[in-house]
Amino acid sequence: MIAGIIGAAGYAGAEIVRILSRHPKVDSLALSSSSHEGKNISSVYPNFIDLIDIPLKNPEALISGSDVVFAALPHGVGETFAAKCFERGVPYIDMSADFRFGDDEETYTAWYGKAYQHPETHKKSVYGLPELNRRKICAAAKEGGAVIGNPGCYPTAASLAAFPALSRGVYGGGTIIVDAASGITGGGREPARAYHFPECSDSMSPYKVGAHRHTPEISRNFSFMENINPQTPRPLIFTPRLAPMNRGILCAVYLPLSSEWKCEAPAKPRPPSPEIQEKTESIRQLYEDFYQNEKFVRVLPTGILPATGRVRLSNFCDIAVQIDQNGGTLIVTSAIDNMVKGAAGQAVQNMNIICGFDETCGLEAAPALF
Amino acid sequence: MIAGIIGAAGYAGAEIVRILSRHPKVDSLALSSSSHEGKNISSVYPNFIDLIDIPLKNPEALISGSDVVFAALPHGVGETFAAKCFERGVPYIDMSADFRFGDDEETYTAWYGKAYQHPETHKKSVYGLPELNRRKICAAAKEGGAVIGNPGCYPTAASLAAFPALSRGVYGGGTIIVDAASGITGGGREPARAYHFPECSDSMSPYKVGAHRHTPEISRNFSFMENINPQTPRPLIFTPRLAPMNRGILCAVYLPLSSEWKCEAPAKPRPPSPEIQEKTESIRQLYEDFYQNEKFVRVLPTGILPATGRVRLSNFCDIAVQIDQNGGTLIVTSAIDNMVKGAAGQAVQNMNIICGFDETCGLEAAPALF
Amino acid sequence: MIAGIIGAAGYAGAEIVRILSRHPKVDSLALSSSSHEGKNISSVYPNFIDLIDIPLKNPEALISGSDVVFAALPHGVGETFAAKCFERGVPYIDMSADFRFGDDEETYTAWYGKAYQHPETHKKSVYGLPELNRRKICAAAKEGGAVIGNPGCYPTAASLAAFPALSRGVYGGGTIIVDAASGITGGGREPARAYHFPECSDSMSPYKVGAHRHTPEISRNFSFMENINPQTPRPLIFTPRLAPMNRGILCAVYLPLSSEWKCEAPAKPRPPSPEIQEKTESIRQLYEDFYQNEKFVRVLPTGILPATGRVRLSNFCDIAVQIDQNGGTLIVTSAIDNMVKGAAGQAVQNMNIICGFDETCGLEAAPALF
Amino acid sequence: MIAGIIGAAGYAGAEIVRILSRHPKVDSLALSSSSHEGKNISSVYPNFIDLIDIPLKNPEALISGSDVVFAALPHGVGETFAAKCFERGVPYIDMSADFRFGDDEETYTAWYGKAYQHPETHKKSVYGLPELNRRKICAAAKEGGAVIGNPGCYPTAASLAAFPALSRGVYGGGTIIVDAASGITGGGREPARAYHFPECSDSMSPYKVGAHRHTPEISRNFSFMENINPQTPRPLIFTPRLAPMNRGILCAVYLPLSSEWKCEAPAKPRPPSPEIQEKTESIRQLYEDFYQNEKFVRVLPTGILPATGRVRLSNFCDIAVQIDQNGGTLIVTSAIDNMVKGAAGQAVQNMNIICGFDETCGLEAAPALF
Repeated sequence: MIAGIIGAAGYAGAEIVRILSRHPKVDSLALSSSSHEGKNISSVYPNFIDLIDIPLKNPEALISGSDVVFAALPHGVGETFAAKCFERGVPYIDMSADFRFGDDEETYTAWYGKAYQHPETHKKSVYGLPELNRRKICAAAKEGGAVIGNPGCYPTAASLAAFPALSRGVYGGGTIIVDAASGITGGGREPARAYHFPECSDSMSPYKVGAHRHTPEISRNFSFMENINPQTPRPLIFTPRLAPMNRGILCAVYLPLSSEWKCEAPAKPRPPSPEIQEKTESIRQLYEDFYQNEKFVRVLPTGILPATGRVRLSNFCDIAVQIDQNGGTLIVTSAIDNMVKGAAGQAVQNMNIICGFDETCGLEAAPALF
Repeated sequence: MIAGIIGAAGYAGAEIVRILSRHPKVDSLALSSSSHEGKNISSVYPNFIDLIDIPLKNPEALISGSDVVFAALPHGVGETFAAKCFERGVPYIDMSADFRFGDDEETYTAWYGKAYQHPETHKKSVYGLPELNRRKICAAAKEGGAVIGNPGCYPTAASLAAFPALSRGVYGGGTIIVDAASGITGGGREPARAYHFPECSDSMSPYKVGAHRHTPEISRNFSFMENINPQTPRPLIFTPRLAPMNRGILCAVYLPLSSEWKCEAPAKPRPPSPEIQEKTESIRQLYEDFYQNEKFVRVLPTGILPATGRVRLSNFCDIAVQIDQNGGTLIVTSAIDNMVKGAAGQAVQNMNIICGFDETCGLEAAPALF
Repeated sequence: MIAGIIGAAGYAGAEIVRILSRHPKVDSLALSSSSHEGKNISSVYPNFIDLIDIPLKNPEALISGSDVVFAALPHGVGETFAAKCFERGVPYIDMSADFRFGDDEETYTAWYGKAYQHPETHKKSVYGLPELNRRKICAAAKEGGAVIGNPGCYPTAASLAAFPALSRGVYGGGTIIVDAASGITGGGREPARAYHFPECSDSMSPYKVGAHRHTPEISRNFSFMENINPQTPRPLIFTPRLAPMNRGILCAVYLPLSSEWKCEAPAKPRPPSPEIQEKTESIRQLYEDFYQNEKFVRVLPTGILPATGRVRLSNFCDIAVQIDQNGGTLIVTSAIDNMVKGAAGQAVQNMNIICGFDETCGLEAAPALF
Repeated sequence: MIAGIIGAAGYAGAEIVRILSRHPKVDSLALSSSSHEGKNISSVYPNFIDLIDIPLKNPEALISGSDVVFAALPHGVGETFAAKCFERGVPYIDMSADFRFGDDEETYTAWYGKAYQHPETHKKSVYGLPELNRRKICAAAKEGGAVIGNPGCYPTAASLAAFPALSRGVYGGGTIIVDAASGITGGGREPARAYHFPECSDSMSPYKVGAHRHTPEISRNFSFMENINPQTPRPLIFTPRLAPMNRGILCAVYLPLSSEWKCEAPAKPRPPSPEIQEKTESIRQLYEDFYQNEKFVRVLPTGILPATGRVRLSNFCDIAVQIDQNGGTLIVTSAIDNMVKGAAGQAVQNMNIICGFDETCGLEAAPALF
């Protein structure tokens, strides 16, 4: 099988290259890059020298010869490629936000400032969070020409953290808060002041507070998970932060508990009561059951909390739950590698599903220790 | 004036040494350390060689010769020193949690697992967050023998972020969430697995979720600020995280808005409306007015968000506000240097108040650029 | 095949676990740890949860059931294990310095402060730098019961950098200087002040200047490479430094040029002359030819210099050469991942050779991009 | 006194601003920036908000109103400013390489690719390494209109490390090697791929090996120190490296010992002999004596090695010496803060000398602890 990667010279594209270079079902790679056309990928990423010495060609040429196409392009520039692939029945996995909103063009336009160019392709597109949407991804594949909107990094970490609580009645309504910190690879390969080492090293800061583009994607996922109409979603707040590390997203989701799960509040702040600890353990168990067939979600044992360093270079999402000491809110913390489960790894997971491979194929490696 | 520092070999103690070594009103320092007694502080911290070559002596000897005493000791071991200083009329500024709870021994014991040894000293003690409690700090000083409970690092960042909203009716009741990340100096000088470079570098993780000891301190401050009975506080959730940086706390506080400040919510998530941006600016202005006489609080200009790297080595707390895109919650982000405004700098600020010096004395330096 | 790892809970041991968990020829792992006996490796390294959940048992039990044994123990404690394995004909790959010096006990004792306990095992042992010693490693394997002294991290980086120059007459005699910086995983898993995040982050320092234990190992390798008597070696200086990064060694080796390669020196310092650039390119070519059959050595294209970040998590050693602007000295810079080519990866490479597998088996993954 | 800073928005310029903002003899600052003209320095560096809110004006306007002028400009663009200041008798301290080579235009042109525009100003200029050149700096000041070429960061660290050995006969001739690692602020404020966080974090690499522009400056200094003709200098090799930290240079200088200081070499590599340790201590003592009146050079006590983290934000250069285990070479390691002693701090030190202030004025603060 030949896998084509449009935009292979960006960080997400290059990470797909790295993963697919060891994928047992992928025979060869075809790569393109508009800014580096004519060069070899290993001259852009010397890491790849002697292993992945593949020329960067024109995207048009790439599409015609590929059995599956990944597009790691900025928002708003890949729709034509998607339409072409769809026409030819070639699965197209898009890393941008372009195909994350299906036919809800209004929301896409409100946040990304662009109109759809090929509305019919959008209608056929499927949101590629396998743990949420596996059935639809499979169905699209069967029809041929799946167009997959690969999820955003923050929405992946937040959605997997909230899914069991939202779908199993642990959440009881009310404002949900998502507070998440990302490593700096999330900003992409282009040098910019915010990602200049002396500006961001040994420092931390929030950005786009209460206004980040991933907000509507998270909100829509939450509505699906809770099985409510996404047109009347729950209030959602999302705060992203930049942390001085290369990879990783560490996410906290705050969900008001349903009456069933609420615990008695102490009059004043006190360490979590036995009731709180017991119900926390029950929710942990509920999470474990919920995700028991998911290979890439690890509900951590009691006493262990997620750390981005423990999912490094893996497709895992690690999750822990805790009811707060007031007994009213579930705090779910999750960690992913933003470049893997938050981007390239999830894209490969989608490819595996579409192509009928084992979902973990090429994604089996243990997280790096450091 | 002679300033004595008990526990000068720990990080907080050494940072007080660093700051006081350039304090124009402090003539000399007396230092003690139980674990390094007999050594010179510059052999423990070679940074200080040729500048601060002061022997580490016995704490008893130190107290008798000092005009003000700082104690940078673990919780539960300094009360006797405090009582002695109080007896002699020597101001005592305590960096541990021991004197942060005044006569509320029950709360202290519930979270720190220890009973008060000198309850009468606790009754006289004053909580040392100057922006909140300046009048009482001054009053205690006038009576002589002030015992100051220097605030925790997280409570400082959270309280300064929330104060105007809580005391000016911006907050409308309901659960308050504090989510904050700290640099690794917060863990102190003793090597431990969690702070071993390969374990925490390039990684991020939460800890003591919904159960951290700073929770009751933050809650009590919030009640004072809102002027409600601290025995019936608002529900508070506090999640701390460890970030791979040396210094700094980056804090986010989520406060449900009062009806006066609430904005119309969009049906679906949309970027902040003009109403939201206007009211955000009004709250920013309210914050600026509220803190206009505070030298160490900077309400940032519109468009600039706090970054721990921008308060590095300074006593500043930088603050920004934003109403979320639903219009229902105020998100306040704040940044401090956990070792300065979060510990040693605030202690010196307290000393300045007690001794009648200008509050910024010895704390005027601009934040380091990197 | 069953691979046993004694000392699996240390960093080097755990890295072997990580690599072997994906090795196509290894069917299962047997692990031991004296300090964590009874626990599961995934409770020591939560990274491994759900992937590598293997109990840590007693080393004795481990040896009897393994087809190959790796020992990742401190110096001086594994000799008895080695002797037992040797007796039973089980290959034994030792990560400590114990078997790096063969029958030169005197040198071992002078630097490591210990005498040999099983001199006869040492006599049979082989130094495991495959690029230098592949033939002997193979020969030992054929006799059964190979005891391999896996090289030190610095000696690996320095030796591969110098080998072509030493063995092909580029080096002309005189003092050789090795100056190398290591990431902090080189210090192992035990927390210590020097590796406490606030002490080593954003800082750099040398250690054991002119006195590091890897000096005699490097010197002996250089003598072998130059084919001179190791009893009368060239003067060698070795300076190690600690750099604020997790993985990696960046090494510079300074080798005085032979008359054949020396270039005309400018009267005063001037940028490298055309002659210097041409001869540099010739030496680069010589290096490329020398290593053309080595899968794990990459002589970089002209204009690219080694970076530890570009060999991260791979078994590569990247190398560049440059004649200094005086024309008298060859500067070779090299980069390895200290945990892979500098430890665990090289051990697996040795296992591959001993067991007759392809040398790259299980070590094919491209370096991580970040 | 009014101090003017041309190029105040760059890193070196801003660091001068930071230091001078607390300088007791400087009444006010005048700032200029061609790229940010019209803005306020605190809008470029929000660190400075509320403390240093000074407009960035035109350089011409700045010069006419300043009592001393610092120029933190790229090479080759400040000569006209220097000439004007010289004419008016206003001291001019230049951070670029333009005035580091006095009348040796040939060398400047060979390395920097530019010709002198005002040769007469260059003739009057003085190299501003106070520990080497204090007398000339003072003399120039007395004549009025001193033009100071502030030293490069690497040359500062290397020169202070080598000075006593070169001038007191410890060095015996032969190739000198300087191997030094710099923090990333050394690359300046402009974002670039090499300084993009994900590219340089957790990685280390050399650059411009054997060809860096600081080579002729180091060489010239070494000749002066040894008191030999700089037209026939000793062979010098200089290798710079980039290390993943904000501030700091860690330098190692390798100097072949004179016969007087050479120690007996062991037949094979052995830990340093008692003779080596004794002579090392004698050289340490010689260094201490040599620098006894220098306030900014700390010859470290036996057993302590330089660490960039221990000179952070200070004007110190920390130095340690060690004879290698062969007895033939002196290894001097030194650490400076590249932005302070390596740039802005040294510039202020020069201003202090020129203006007749105490040399430590404004530079007394202890190094930051982390």
